[in-house]
Amino acid sequence: MTGRLAVVGLGPGDTRYLTPEADEVLSTVEALYGYGPYLDRVAQRAGQSRHASDNREERRRAAAALRHAAQGANVAVVSSGDPGVFAMAAAVCEEIESGPESWRALDLKIVPGITAMLAVAARIGAPLGHDFCVLSLSDNLKPWELIEQRLDAAAGAGFVIALYNPVSRARPWQLGTAIERLQRHLPRSTPVVFGRAIGRPGEEVNVTTLDAADANSADMTTLIIIGSRATRVIARPGRGPLVYTPRAAAEVSA
Amino acid sequence: MTGRLAVVGLGPGDTRYLTPEADEVLSTVEALYGYGPYLDRVAQRAGQSRHASDNREERRRAAAALRHAAQGANVAVVSSGDPGVFAMAAAVCEEIESGPESWRALDLKIVPGITAMLAVAARIGAPLGHDFCVLSLSDNLKPWELIEQRLDAAAGAGFVIALYNPVSRARPWQLGTAIERLQRHLPRSTPVVFGRAIGRPGEEVNVTTLDAADANSADMTTLIIIGSRATRVIARPGRGPLVYTPRAAAEVSA
Repeated sequence: MTGRLAVVGLGPGDTRYLTPEADEVLSTVEALYGYGPYLDRVAQRAGQSRHASDNREERRRAAAALRHAAQGANVAVVSSGDPGVFAMAAAVCEEIESGPESWRALDLKIVPGITAMLAVAARIGAPLGHDFCVLSLSDNLKPWELIEQRLDAAAGAGFVIALYNPVSRARPWQLGTAIERLQRHLPRSTPVVFGRAIGRPGEEVNVTTLDAADANSADMTTLIIIGSRATRVIARPGRGPLVYTPRAAAEVSA
Repeated sequence: MTGRLAVVGLGPGDTRYLTPEADEVLSTVEALYGYGPYLDRVAQRAGQSRHASDNREERRRAAAALRHAAQGANVAVVSSGDPGVFAMAAAVCEEIESGPESWRALDLKIVPGITAMLAVAARIGAPLGHDFCVLSLSDNLKPWELIEQRLDAAAGAGFVIALYNPVSRARPWQLGTAIERLQRHLPRSTPVVFGRAIGRPGEEVNVTTLDAADANSADMTTLIIIGSRATRVIARPGRGPLVYTPRAAAEVSA
């Protein structure tokens, strides 16, 4: 008997974003693993066990789910958004690579979901309509110098930048420092979008500029999009502004 | 009476990826606009008109849909994948900005979808599990020199790279040139993933290396993921390999 492990993306939070494939997989598993608040988003079904763990426990959670699946069970690990973007799919792969050979024989299925940057972008227009970079601002797993180097490279080459994990209780200064760093490369009028809790209670999307961007207005659930020199804002009478990056680009910097 | 325009992401092609939100919007509109093969994926419903247009007609299609909505109609434009990633949302914003003032008053809704890189990544593991860049290889709307500059910046700074629009009949040499360019920055053993037609007939996902990557094996429906120095391949007896990029990074290049 071979166990099965699914790594399932729940999307940004609202079941309107949960794909039929994710819903089907979640309805058939025997056991669910995940960060507590994400598990709480999954509909309760009879006969399923739930194993909640803390935010920072990704590898331990992945190992527990793999052990359970290796016993022949049909198991799912859930992620908010897409499991492949700064989420559980990489943690599961890390555990498979370093774990017992039998884990490589498991039937592993990764179910994609709407990741936060796509949901935030959709709410405000099309800021990711041209080339962009996606960067986690957490220096828990990489040196801060590497993050700065990547911010420099991305802004310098004209990429729009989507920032995941901008801030946490243990990482209070990083976002402010990143914003200052980006101000060296980009005009102060560059559009910046803060999106939080998309599709959940407390949803908020705000447009500001790199000059006025306030790191204190972000929390753990915030996704930030920093425009490029090409990103534009369309004012709309009686409606919120649209932010978009045109598909065409002419500029080649020095 | 104010018209409504929805820009709807269909996901990679299979209805298992179509979100409930997208399905609901598509079921309520009076008129559908899109590239013919994408429109063909939408279930037929009585009373809806369909307006197919060619692949390269994005702005004209956006303008036609906006004009229709401005007459008070409830209209949708469909995109494959996510409409905000190299797709119709930016084209619609471009038309709104340059069009009549009344278009800014329209009720515009953008409905996110599973974009190709998330679907390809999910099929193969977690290659986008760490920082990554997303780049269109089409030089129809930007100079080739800019693309090379961005490839240099992305590979040099250790980003994984997702390439959209790698090739078309009118752009036969660009992918080969990009691969050669990336070989200057990255080891020849760097994992490369070619994914095509995910969730559709003819689906294929292949893992190769930067050394062996063959530009001729890509077509218009292919999405390519170029690993970073950190990206790893896990061999699995009796199963295809997993490709993933660990969440942790130590390297700071010079």
